[in-house]
Amino acid sequence: MGLVVQKYGGSSVADAEGIKRVAKRIVDTKKQGHEVVVVVSAMGDTTDELIDLAQQVSPIPSGRELDMLLTAGERMSMALLAMAIKNLGVDARSFTGSQAGVITDAVHNKARIIDVTPGRIRSALDEGAIAIVAGFQGVSQDTKDITTLGRGGSDTTAVALAAALDAEVCEIYTDVDGIFTADPRVVKKARKISRISYQEMLELAASGSKVLHLRCVEYARRYDMPVHVRSSFSGLVGTWVTDEPEGDDMEHAIISGVAHDTSEAKITVVGVPDKPGEAAKIFRLVADNEINIDMIVQNVSAASTGRTDISFTLPMSDGQNAMTALTKAQAEIGFESLRYDDQIGKISLVGAGMRSHPGVTAKFFESLTGAGVNIELISTSEIRISVVCRADGVPAAVQAVHTAFGLDDQSGEAVVYGGTGR
Amino acid sequence: MGLVVQKYGGSSVADAEGIKRVAKRIVDTKKQGHEVVVVVSAMGDTTDELIDLAQQVSPIPSGRELDMLLTAGERMSMALLAMAIKNLGVDARSFTGSQAGVITDAVHNKARIIDVTPGRIRSALDEGAIAIVAGFQGVSQDTKDITTLGRGGSDTTAVALAAALDAEVCEIYTDVDGIFTADPRVVKKARKISRISYQEMLELAASGSKVLHLRCVEYARRYDMPVHVRSSFSGLVGTWVTDEPEGDDMEHAIISGVAHDTSEAKITVVGVPDKPGEAAKIFRLVADNEINIDMIVQNVSAASTGRTDISFTLPMSDGQNAMTALTKAQAEIGFESLRYDDQIGKISLVGAGMRSHPGVTAKFFESLTGAGVNIELISTSEIRISVVCRADGVPAAVQAVHTAFGLDDQSGEAVVYGGTGR
Repeated sequence: MGLVVQKYGGSSVADAEGIKRVAKRIVDTKKQGHEVVVVVSAMGDTTDELIDLAQQVSPIPSGRELDMLLTAGERMSMALLAMAIKNLGVDARSFTGSQAGVITDAVHNKARIIDVTPGRIRSALDEGAIAIVAGFQGVSQDTKDITTLGRGGSDTTAVALAAALDAEVCEIYTDVDGIFTADPRVVKKARKISRISYQEMLELAASGSKVLHLRCVEYARRYDMPVHVRSSFSGLVGTWVTDEPEGDDMEHAIISGVAHDTSEAKITVVGVPDKPGEAAKIFRLVADNEINIDMIVQNVSAASTGRTDISFTLPMSDGQNAMTALTKAQAEIGFESLRYDDQIGKISLVGAGMRSHPGVTAKFFESLTGAGVNIELISTSEIRISVVCRADGVPAAVQAVHTAFGLDDQSGEAVVYGGTGR
Repeated sequence: MGLVVQKYGGSSVADAEGIKRVAKRIVDTKKQGHEVVVVVSAMGDTTDELIDLAQQVSPIPSGRELDMLLTAGERMSMALLAMAIKNLGVDARSFTGSQAGVITDAVHNKARIIDVTPGRIRSALDEGAIAIVAGFQGVSQDTKDITTLGRGGSDTTAVALAAALDAEVCEIYTDVDGIFTADPRVVKKARKISRISYQEMLELAASGSKVLHLRCVEYARRYDMPVHVRSSFSGLVGTWVTDEPEGDDMEHAIISGVAHDTSEAKITVVGVPDKPGEAAKIFRLVADNEINIDMIVQNVSAASTGRTDISFTLPMSDGQNAMTALTKAQAEIGFESLRYDDQIGKISLVGAGMRSHPGVTAKFFESLTGAGVNIELISTSEIRISVVCRADGVPAAVQAVHTAFGLDDQSGEAVVYGGTGR
């Protein structure tokens, strides 16, 4: 019976009743003989309400102060959860990110964890207590200021603590039953995946699957920490995210799932001088503004003009920042104009099995054509193919691809391909 | 132009509009050339709402966790206030009690400040920023846990920081114009006091005047820190709390004011063996439960029984705790029974001038008799007389005493006694 880290999201602790229900589940785990560390998010819509208040006093709130404000959210949920557990007769202590030793860089609102020193958590466990830790937050190594890890950061806190404490498993409790082959709100016949590799989960998370935060999966893979994604409302087994199956796994599907994302925008930089270093200038500028970009496409240069167009996609929420920064640098970079398009959607097919199945790409494109979807950008990795199309074409496209690859649930039986190995 | 510490209560920062109004006042002070440190309470009813949530998950919440929960309140108000100030173009940084160096003992929910090490505040000021500090909270020296100073503790935070930073003045902004000769809700003709000594203010605060927290005044007296109590809604000069006037101050009134308090209860321990050490046992027990008692009266022992009754008053909120602790110790202490009475009120007359006016006590009792008030307990200090009566007699009694001592406002002119000195 080892150490278990459990993470509960905001919807699981939205009110007093939810907190009491979660407390009972935690106490049950403790009574099974485990050491238990719990990472908790802010209650329900608290974070959104605080952001709303911030915008009432300042249109562009200071990053440092926004972090100070938002971290009040988990402070409330963790203290209430610790009280509820103590009320069940089991010792519990709450800790802020700083107290739990979550050390980050100083980039407010999207800090990165650079070290975890959970001495106080270890002591609490040694004294027989359950440790409740605020998700999403840390303290900057250099400035000692309070930082937040950005949306979904509580998942990352949980996996980072699990790794630092050498936990047996990191359980991510959420309001769905696990990871699905597609978003069940879009594809009715989406199936729950019982086991998926870190690599595939990374691609799914990067492609728009909302259940696990990308950085959390990166962290889990780096430290080889098994993650069990499951529902806090049912007792069901969810999805295990682990390393890849050893040897030939005859039952491992070629395709894990279809992800989609309509939260990105596309910026096209028109008429960039086609000289070495021009693209680098653009992406250095974007990086310096702490903007993560996703897909990049450079058109073939028109010989007559010596100029080319460069398109890239990025989170819509960073769109305004990027346009402002690029506009300021227009003279220096020497491009002709900018185009901004936030009516795009991205569809991604993910599966470790596609490495050895050359027909996957063709079938993917055929199914998109069948759904009447026009492809605007393409990007591939060894285990993923993504395309950008119009946002309003996304639901039909996802449904068509899901069916074409045999992912639809058929009377409860998971459809699997015979693995050919490699 | 020196350093000014300003404290704003919850009613001054109850919503986004209030926060913006306070931000403007702070910026004005800074623009007059002062260094400014601001101590802020939680917004409006936040603290009460959090206590209510705590009670929904646990009937008797853990003290440590309740402190963790409640400190979320100032975290929100201070971050929002810092944002609002920055939005006016002036640099501001918020600090938790712990970051501001407010070091306390480990008594949760009513911790005492044992040291203030405001290094980070000093650095922020040196860099030209306004420092916003969370009131009411600190960090325990021994356990490194978050603590709170109890209700009204933000005043104490402000004076303690002012002393540690060698401020010129500590301004306490509130929703009234200053300290009055009586509660204006009870006595319509109550007058604002323009200047009062630490000693008199201490007695008023201890006697039920709610405007300044008792410990804040103790702190101010110990460090000789001038406190200016004034309204955050008007620009008026309020009440200065300072050391006593030097030499003969011909205009210093005999009586500063009349305070009342209906938040106490009376416990009578009946039939205590009249032997040395019995009373000590009772009050050791009460002290060990962290209960502050106020007045104590021991009846003359009845020779026939060798037993006596001991009565004391205490905050009503501590009543249940005290009764439980005493009941448990009944066999050990050997008393006969306990009586609990929460229908009491206390009326206190405070004034440094009464030291040299022997007629004050007689006049006080005469005015109470005239109002038909029956006196149950009496307690005196050099500059205060307090009596306990029935709670429902308090308004009439306060009014009668206020009039008898010439404190009623007469066409704007303060009524002063010629001082006889001593």
